[in-house]
Amino acid sequence: MAASLGLRGAASGLWFWSGRQRPAARLAAVCSRSMASKTPVGFIGLGNMGNPMAKNLIKHGYPLILYDVFPDACKEFQEAGEQVESSPADVAEKADRIITMLPTSMNSVEVYSGANGILKKVKKGSLLIDSSTIDPSVSKQLAKEVEKMGAVFMDAPVSGGVGAARSGNLTFMVGGVEDEFAAAQTLLGCMGSNVIYCGAVGTGQAAKICNNMLLAISMIGTAEAMNLGIRSGLDPKLLAKILNMSSGRCWSSDTYNPVPGVMDGVPSSNNYQGGFGTTLMAKDLGLAQDSATSTKSPILLGSLAHQIYRMMCAKGYSKKDFSSVFQYLREEETF
Amino acid sequence: MAASLGLRGAASGLWFWSGRQRPAARLAAVCSRSMASKTPVGFIGLGNMGNPMAKNLIKHGYPLILYDVFPDACKEFQEAGEQVESSPADVAEKADRIITMLPTSMNSVEVYSGANGILKKVKKGSLLIDSSTIDPSVSKQLAKEVEKMGAVFMDAPVSGGVGAARSGNLTFMVGGVEDEFAAAQTLLGCMGSNVIYCGAVGTGQAAKICNNMLLAISMIGTAEAMNLGIRSGLDPKLLAKILNMSSGRCWSSDTYNPVPGVMDGVPSSNNYQGGFGTTLMAKDLGLAQDSATSTKSPILLGSLAHQIYRMMCAKGYSKKDFSSVFQYLREEETF
Amino acid sequence: MAASLGLRGAASGLWFWSGRQRPAARLAAVCSRSMASKTPVGFIGLGNMGNPMAKNLIKHGYPLILYDVFPDACKEFQEAGEQVESSPADVAEKADRIITMLPTSMNSVEVYSGANGILKKVKKGSLLIDSSTIDPSVSKQLAKEVEKMGAVFMDAPVSGGVGAARSGNLTFMVGGVEDEFAAAQTLLGCMGSNVIYCGAVGTGQAAKICNNMLLAISMIGTAEAMNLGIRSGLDPKLLAKILNMSSGRCWSSDTYNPVPGVMDGVPSSNNYQGGFGTTLMAKDLGLAQDSATSTKSPILLGSLAHQIYRMMCAKGYSKKDFSSVFQYLREEETF
Amino acid sequence: MAASLGLRGAASGLWFWSGRQRPAARLAAVCSRSMASKTPVGFIGLGNMGNPMAKNLIKHGYPLILYDVFPDACKEFQEAGEQVESSPADVAEKADRIITMLPTSMNSVEVYSGANGILKKVKKGSLLIDSSTIDPSVSKQLAKEVEKMGAVFMDAPVSGGVGAARSGNLTFMVGGVEDEFAAAQTLLGCMGSNVIYCGAVGTGQAAKICNNMLLAISMIGTAEAMNLGIRSGLDPKLLAKILNMSSGRCWSSDTYNPVPGVMDGVPSSNNYQGGFGTTLMAKDLGLAQDSATSTKSPILLGSLAHQIYRMMCAKGYSKKDFSSVFQYLREEETF
Repeated sequence: MAASLGLRGAASGLWFWSGRQRPAARLAAVCSRSMASKTPVGFIGLGNMGNPMAKNLIKHGYPLILYDVFPDACKEFQEAGEQVESSPADVAEKADRIITMLPTSMNSVEVYSGANGILKKVKKGSLLIDSSTIDPSVSKQLAKEVEKMGAVFMDAPVSGGVGAARSGNLTFMVGGVEDEFAAAQTLLGCMGSNVIYCGAVGTGQAAKICNNMLLAISMIGTAEAMNLGIRSGLDPKLLAKILNMSSGRCWSSDTYNPVPGVMDGVPSSNNYQGGFGTTLMAKDLGLAQDSATSTKSPILLGSLAHQIYRMMCAKGYSKKDFSSVFQYLREEETF
Repeated sequence: MAASLGLRGAASGLWFWSGRQRPAARLAAVCSRSMASKTPVGFIGLGNMGNPMAKNLIKHGYPLILYDVFPDACKEFQEAGEQVESSPADVAEKADRIITMLPTSMNSVEVYSGANGILKKVKKGSLLIDSSTIDPSVSKQLAKEVEKMGAVFMDAPVSGGVGAARSGNLTFMVGGVEDEFAAAQTLLGCMGSNVIYCGAVGTGQAAKICNNMLLAISMIGTAEAMNLGIRSGLDPKLLAKILNMSSGRCWSSDTYNPVPGVMDGVPSSNNYQGGFGTTLMAKDLGLAQDSATSTKSPILLGSLAHQIYRMMCAKGYSKKDFSSVFQYLREEETF
Repeated sequence: MAASLGLRGAASGLWFWSGRQRPAARLAAVCSRSMASKTPVGFIGLGNMGNPMAKNLIKHGYPLILYDVFPDACKEFQEAGEQVESSPADVAEKADRIITMLPTSMNSVEVYSGANGILKKVKKGSLLIDSSTIDPSVSKQLAKEVEKMGAVFMDAPVSGGVGAARSGNLTFMVGGVEDEFAAAQTLLGCMGSNVIYCGAVGTGQAAKICNNMLLAISMIGTAEAMNLGIRSGLDPKLLAKILNMSSGRCWSSDTYNPVPGVMDGVPSSNNYQGGFGTTLMAKDLGLAQDSATSTKSPILLGSLAHQIYRMMCAKGYSKKDFSSVFQYLREEETF
Repeated sequence: MAASLGLRGAASGLWFWSGRQRPAARLAAVCSRSMASKTPVGFIGLGNMGNPMAKNLIKHGYPLILYDVFPDACKEFQEAGEQVESSPADVAEKADRIITMLPTSMNSVEVYSGANGILKKVKKGSLLIDSSTIDPSVSKQLAKEVEKMGAVFMDAPVSGGVGAARSGNLTFMVGGVEDEFAAAQTLLGCMGSNVIYCGAVGTGQAAKICNNMLLAISMIGTAEAMNLGIRSGLDPKLLAKILNMSSGRCWSSDTYNPVPGVMDGVPSSNNYQGGFGTTLMAKDLGLAQDSATSTKSPILLGSLAHQIYRMMCAKGYSKKDFSSVFQYLREEETF
């Protein structure tokens, strides 16, 4: 289920830019044919998301040169015959295409610009793709530093959770020089079913941040509306149907309804297990907040949504799916 | 365009409860066949919405008995041969099915319970349908008073603007005793393409209020996300496409996008003319606020959306379409 | 401590309109001198607040004619020789000055306009003072009905909790015809140390509502600022001192600081026991919300404060002092 | 008037830590006595605030070594015989005590760590005091870099506007190693009447940010409460008096009331000229937001206050005093 987060109709064959994308099945065929000639790809950051992403590259025939700050994270790959290095710089010495998948802006800065960072040994003409979700202004800063070394940087954050990472159905939102997009797409297409070119460096991050901010707002809005309706005597399933045929309709109401029992196969009907955690949503809203502050864009509802998810993290909801905001709101007054 | 507000896919044949509804065309045929035998229907409140609604009843063969607090509003009907009365009580004396379409809770109270109100002369067994959008608790109160007189009250607020009223494509959300729903539907089906039974008295209002609150939240959210994205360097049309294929998707982003130039045929591409006025949205959010306060339901984003539309009314946006919140937010800082 | 809520410097002799008020001690002397000639006063509503208020009237020499919807509430007074009636109407038949102290707008409507309400038997020229905190529009409505009967209505809500009620140190904010203020003040001065004339009927309520809304906002603001400062490494007592000598200073920071250990003798240093309950604050903010909606006044922070106290009521804070919002906010994120 | 912003009772002789501070008059005497022996002080950033601050150091007998990115800003000082350098590094080469007063975090980073920054030539044991209002995490970062060079860094942001800078009545909130506080105080005491030690590096910034966030919240709250009260029929002066003797009292209501005509000598009675500009408040709230995000502190009202001032900047209020939020809110709905 989590696989479909952030992506409508991947399963039903909805392709965004059909000319640029190919179904995973065909790609696999293409890849295996050209397997022999494939040059190794660097991959840094083998966490919950990076691990299955790296495996999909391997499935498509790419030998990997790997690094993770926790050596244990590389063990599985090492045993399978992949090459493991002891620093980002060492990866950069051996691979001219590198993908990074890291948890925070600070980690990206460290991996690129740190004492043993990529930039210490990056080769001219290398393609560096950062799939981390970080502050767009940090992406821009990194891009400048990379450019000075004669290499190319692209930001390519993903939509879709661990499930989508496993099944190769992630959506990548890519920012960077358009001429390099085709090269990036060749790699990213092995890990995702949608690879969208968004514009200059940083716009990949911006697109993801804007989507997730709107997602948070409409999810909380759906939870408030459903809760108000239920307390006003409406049947939850009926109310969901009415909203979904009316102007209140949104992904949170028609695909991922937060009220237990209204839909099958979503986290709300599984005690808010799985899905997209409240902590991660709070993180993305923090990035939206930072972007809005630095671009002087008013985000009245976005700010409040940020604070609500912040509160939820402190009230025991941090590991539940972000649709648990319904549960958070519906607790009854006790007087 | 306004016709489709609050209603997805009416034009594309999406019917909610197909067994209960018939396309307007067929209804017309049915109606004209049975025209001769139709008993008059009372109609009180001939404003922007009531006027075209009443005309659709006439088209379907119902003689009307009319009242409006402004006599001029009845003139057109009188000249066309319809019967005009000088008080709601007089209408109630002559018609046993009455539809009321009034601007505020107070007007409904006056028309039903006032000195010359419907209840002064209502006949036993009469069916009174209030299509006004008012406080659900007022609907419940009126229902009690009507019941004491041996008559039946239903609340049936509408979704869809003046355009939908003209074309007979309104959505009615109906609350009241289920046994009487079929009788209400016969009349309402002449004016709308969707007639939805919501439950006990007041739930029609509740459903509408919940939908419009979620609509306001997702519209403001869409405006914030689009504005933040544009300021971050994204192309508006591209950003809208990304949102609409992702989890941020909502009616406000994919059907009624608030950014000028992103979609054709919506108010944002027509200088925010037409559509659903900011004043009306502020009114509905006031009702949501009242409902939430009385049911002790937290509506953090709903409250803030209310205040934002309240502010906009004071800043010259009162007559613009409610999607003009994008314009309100995007004004640039001047320093 | 709770006694001083809503009132700065009562103990230190700060008198608002000195010409109109006299210290309790002198009033007592005046009262006892004229004791013999005092005519009975009606008192309806003997709850937590009404009980000690009624006792202060007795101390000042007024015989009482009492009613409460729960007969047990009158027992204590009956045993002490006061006269108890079985309905508000019966009280109105025997007393031409009546004070009402009730929990909600609906209770006030019932006691004045109900089947056995005051208005059924009120004498011409009677002075009816409602000390309940209710919707100002309800006060105005009651005033109209009372006026029709040839009597006078004033709204006189109180500031100060149970402690202030016991010690006779309440603040009364009085709305009504100015000519009748002196008569009201004679009675209210027995129960409070500040009796303030605010203007036409309803302005007493408005003044209280505005004060309490600002109080809620500045309390939450103080809690947010203290919490942010503490997490940023500041010592709580030092931060409070800095705020209190700077422009952030407010009653909530310098007299009622919400951080445990910063001040002695306030609820925050007593596990948030006593003081002004979160539920009561949520109620007053609901009234502020209603007033703002009906006067079309934007209250962005006020609305959000309302929602925050609403949430707190559902999270186990309903009976704690309203300064417990600090505790609510400071809970740590657990990841 | 603006001079007293952020500072209660400076004029009336309220001293926070009397042992550590001396009235400006006495300091002047002390300074002039020891004038002969004074070593030069570096000063970088001669804008609206830096200019009068530097002049006060000169008045107290300190020769200055100056730098500003705009050479024109130094001209006046150069003509008066002060020494002007062509980079921060050059200032650091010649002075072992330097004060910096810069508009943004980025400017501070550039002046300290840039290509020609202070750190390029800083002498061991130098005392570097940054009076800019910036992100506390940037202050901490700078402190680390300075420490590596064997020098000392303190953050010392100011409260009080241009007027207070001129009259030497600023409040300094100082963070850094406590042992160095006395040395910092010697210099800062020439420019301010309150010099407060707040704790470790960054706490000066944190104290200022917390104060200004609470100030913004209580100012908006006061504006909302006054506006709601006025629309409910209360006289503004009377309402202000009631609030100021009650629990709603705050600096914004009793010292800097935002309603024109309620108080003399404040910006609201001078068409919101002078005082503390809306743009500056928006900037400080942006810093509060950043701090809250990085420390995971919920600031529900603080965030909304930030967004409100952000909106105001875009609506023509950027150069008005921040109390103009009353004007922003009170605009009437036009329907």
